[in-house]
Amino acid sequence: MKFSPLLSELISALTCLPGVGNKSAQRMAFHLLERNRQGALALSTVLHNAMEHIRHCQRCRTFTEDPLCEICRHPERADSGLLCIVESPQDVMAIEQTLTFKGTYFVLMGHLSPIDGIGPDDIGLGELEQRLREEAISEVILATNPTVEGEATAHYIAQLCSRHNIEASRIAHGVPVGGELEYIDGNTLTHAFSGRRRL
Amino acid sequence: MKFSPLLSELISALTCLPGVGNKSAQRMAFHLLERNRQGALALSTVLHNAMEHIRHCQRCRTFTEDPLCEICRHPERADSGLLCIVESPQDVMAIEQTLTFKGTYFVLMGHLSPIDGIGPDDIGLGELEQRLREEAISEVILATNPTVEGEATAHYIAQLCSRHNIEASRIAHGVPVGGELEYIDGNTLTHAFSGRRRL
Repeated sequence: MKFSPLLSELISALTCLPGVGNKSAQRMAFHLLERNRQGALALSTVLHNAMEHIRHCQRCRTFTEDPLCEICRHPERADSGLLCIVESPQDVMAIEQTLTFKGTYFVLMGHLSPIDGIGPDDIGLGELEQRLREEAISEVILATNPTVEGEATAHYIAQLCSRHNIEASRIAHGVPVGGELEYIDGNTLTHAFSGRRRL
Repeated sequence: MKFSPLLSELISALTCLPGVGNKSAQRMAFHLLERNRQGALALSTVLHNAMEHIRHCQRCRTFTEDPLCEICRHPERADSGLLCIVESPQDVMAIEQTLTFKGTYFVLMGHLSPIDGIGPDDIGLGELEQRLREEAISEVILATNPTVEGEATAHYIAQLCSRHNIEASRIAHGVPVGGELEYIDGNTLTHAFSGRRRL
């Protein structure tokens, strides 16, 4: 004995969501059926529209339903000459929330990872090189994640920049604000010491 | 600066799922866009179909897209004269997996809870009474949850049964198989002692 065919199908379809196994999918299916059919119908419509219409921005590769994303369409940002390289659209959001950066972005949608077969073309470095050639970029800020792959990607792109005579910088590594030295890992502390600044 | 309008809409629509806040919804949206657009489109279709077609079984109130669910359609089960009362369709599944019960079910889709305004009509006790009147039921097994509300609901239905001269029984409370006495709560132990059986 199983749930009715359509209900089983719904439960198995819900497991396509990350972190949702069979039991959570059951809970979701029953919650929607019992308490929020309207919400579920709305989700069904938006899900369909989003999957059909959201593509990559032609300039920075972030997700957007327009040919160019809002940031790339902004004239002052393009004129700033600053280009920030990040791994994901979520990183763009995190940086935007600080209100400190007024340039444009390039979203790699991943990082170099030869072991997973992810090479320069998979993270759009061809398109990046074209931008380095065509746009008046004065500085490239490398804001990839401070992981092994992120660092390798940053180094690779820095070499690309030097070939185009464009200055490349890496965001600072060090002790996070509000953190306690006691609990900071050794690698970060080493970075914090080597990157110290005169007061 | 926010995500593009359609992407923001997708993220907010995903929060209709239970246990999914803004951050998880973001993670889900990006996962689907990056890695599983086909799965998301399939989910969109199934979600729509399920919300439009899944209704309650006319006899036992569980979820099904047919007028009667598979169990209620089974001729031998209706003839058994046993009716098991549970709170949710998931409880039906749990009992079915044991393969010990061969009667029919009645799914309350909740429990009596005057404080939340849930009275006898909201858990279908009118329909249950009709079944008690019309069907040849020899025993009603009360398998509501062993919570305060579940017990109250069981008592209420037991009184209903006695008015129709139908025997009502409650599933046994006691020490779960594989449990260790040391870690069992006092209430359960009390039940285990008072419900002891001669060997």
